[in-house]
Amino acid sequence: MATNLQTVDWVDGKLRLIDQTVLPRELAYLDYEDWREVANAITTMVVRGAPAIGCTAAFAMALGARSIQTEDWQTFRSEMKEIALVTRSARPTAVNLMWAVDRILRVIDRHQGSVEQAKWAAEDEAVAMLDEDLKVNRALGRNGAELLPEDSTVLTHCNAGALACVGFGTALGVVRAAVEAGKAVRVIADETRPRLQGMKLTAWELLQDGIPVTVIADNMAAVLMRDGKIDCVVVGADRIAANGDTANKIGTYNVAVLAKHHGVPFYVAAPFSTIDMTLPNGTGIPIEERDLLEVTHMDGVRIAPQDAPVWNPAFDVTPNDLITAIITEKGVVRAPFEEKLRALSQQ
Amino acid sequence: MATNLQTVDWVDGKLRLIDQTVLPRELAYLDYEDWREVANAITTMVVRGAPAIGCTAAFAMALGARSIQTEDWQTFRSEMKEIALVTRSARPTAVNLMWAVDRILRVIDRHQGSVEQAKWAAEDEAVAMLDEDLKVNRALGRNGAELLPEDSTVLTHCNAGALACVGFGTALGVVRAAVEAGKAVRVIADETRPRLQGMKLTAWELLQDGIPVTVIADNMAAVLMRDGKIDCVVVGADRIAANGDTANKIGTYNVAVLAKHHGVPFYVAAPFSTIDMTLPNGTGIPIEERDLLEVTHMDGVRIAPQDAPVWNPAFDVTPNDLITAIITEKGVVRAPFEEKLRALSQQ
Repeated sequence: MATNLQTVDWVDGKLRLIDQTVLPRELAYLDYEDWREVANAITTMVVRGAPAIGCTAAFAMALGARSIQTEDWQTFRSEMKEIALVTRSARPTAVNLMWAVDRILRVIDRHQGSVEQAKWAAEDEAVAMLDEDLKVNRALGRNGAELLPEDSTVLTHCNAGALACVGFGTALGVVRAAVEAGKAVRVIADETRPRLQGMKLTAWELLQDGIPVTVIADNMAAVLMRDGKIDCVVVGADRIAANGDTANKIGTYNVAVLAKHHGVPFYVAAPFSTIDMTLPNGTGIPIEERDLLEVTHMDGVRIAPQDAPVWNPAFDVTPNDLITAIITEKGVVRAPFEEKLRALSQQ
Repeated sequence: MATNLQTVDWVDGKLRLIDQTVLPRELAYLDYEDWREVANAITTMVVRGAPAIGCTAAFAMALGARSIQTEDWQTFRSEMKEIALVTRSARPTAVNLMWAVDRILRVIDRHQGSVEQAKWAAEDEAVAMLDEDLKVNRALGRNGAELLPEDSTVLTHCNAGALACVGFGTALGVVRAAVEAGKAVRVIADETRPRLQGMKLTAWELLQDGIPVTVIADNMAAVLMRDGKIDCVVVGADRIAANGDTANKIGTYNVAVLAKHHGVPFYVAAPFSTIDMTLPNGTGIPIEERDLLEVTHMDGVRIAPQDAPVWNPAFDVTPNDLITAIITEKGVVRAPFEEKLRALSQQ
């Protein structure tokens, strides 16, 4: 029942990504050797989803390190700083990107003085993160699966699946783990305008696995909740503040308000690398605003009137009081979040 | 500031409709002489919006009457019954359709015995309804305009504008009347998936009038409300039950829940012809489910994965406890609605 999709992979010294801009029309892979192109693949959303962005950024750093033509440590380290800066700015909201860049920098610094060793260590660390991501997702999936009723319908928003990670998924990892545990789980996928990741990615990857899924327009979820057809909501996260406030795909806050109104449990599933203990609350999370063409055009064709002003924030912040629990690889955390998240983050 | 758009018109013995399936790409008019084609134009949404559907149905009846080749009253009346049946079934939710068909039948019956007089009377009544619709919208617009702050931002869902009526609009009629009264009003238009009437029709017609409008994906409204950027919600209606429960475009209930959560006033603007006093509450309102291609395809191009199951209800019902007031041509009605609506309906 587990998907075989590997969204981020390291093959013969090249980074291999599933090109998510052409799904579900086509399952195509792109290989990268140039770190700048990898950073650009994050910006243009060839790869998206906080954990996948994190691992991809690690390879941007490893490929960047390899590209530096010097044996002088100071020069190397200074060029790495520049590569880190560019990679970090590929997208602003998902903290996994910053976390992964910092992790590679720390590994490099452990080999201070030896450029060659630092380059190999960076690559080894990035490769280790692939495996780690899968293990973390399987662990959080098992933790979250216990929260789902034996026979249940889960609403999810955007894509927090195998395509948002190296594989398996966070929110969809919870679903997959529940299915593996023998539970009868169906998914309702919000299509998730403007980029339709719910329709194009979530529905597609669940269909690959034979997990029942129904796509709805984002504004249909309220009626399903009112009619008792949603047992719980499970979404991913791009950044979670210390108090549990959660930035995720635009529309997540909408779903959280609906869940509260209808008494439906609202779960956030994310690895600890998504938790930013440096931010006391969600007001400090930078919210990316993306190209207005994402709203006004569909697959390259204009759908909006000429000159119609539009707004296109990529994320919103769900306040902690709308979140029933945060599902992590270290356990399920319920409100109040801060103390428990801090304790787990130090484990 | 008032739009010159006439969505439904009677020109040289033909029904002229704006073809709303090609907006905003093109402003095109279609002329009809065959009543069956008129009923089909309602089904295929060449014309849509409860008041516009009502007037169009009246012309389907008038053209139907004209097409009957008999001078025998019984035969004529029996064929009219058939025409009424087909016209009524063009779409199930908007009660204005049934109201308009019944109104033409009553006029015909006033000329019992004279087929020729009945045919002319049906046509005269349909033509009178055009003018009446504009007057009703202007009256409800003035009533609703008083509810808007001097400087305000109104969120609307779908299109309850000139394009949903003969002209002027219901929800957008309130906005237009407020602008005419000198208020500074801006509109946030939910794009309104799946058919995008908010993006394709509401934004387009407000741009024609120079009224400031910004299009958002449906799932962006929650954040704007949280940030205090929406002063009130004004939507139209397809059918209002005696207790105030309101069927309107899918997603309206979602917006109403959000408005309640954020303390934002939620207004329904509709003519009395939209109120169905025969239904005690919203559970009796039939909800149309439309072709799944409306969700899976965009302008004829598939956007969903092959074989992805989808759901496509065209309407939802907002319960009366989420509605701050119902704006009609006879006045603004606040909860509890039933007694007041019943009293006004008898005026």
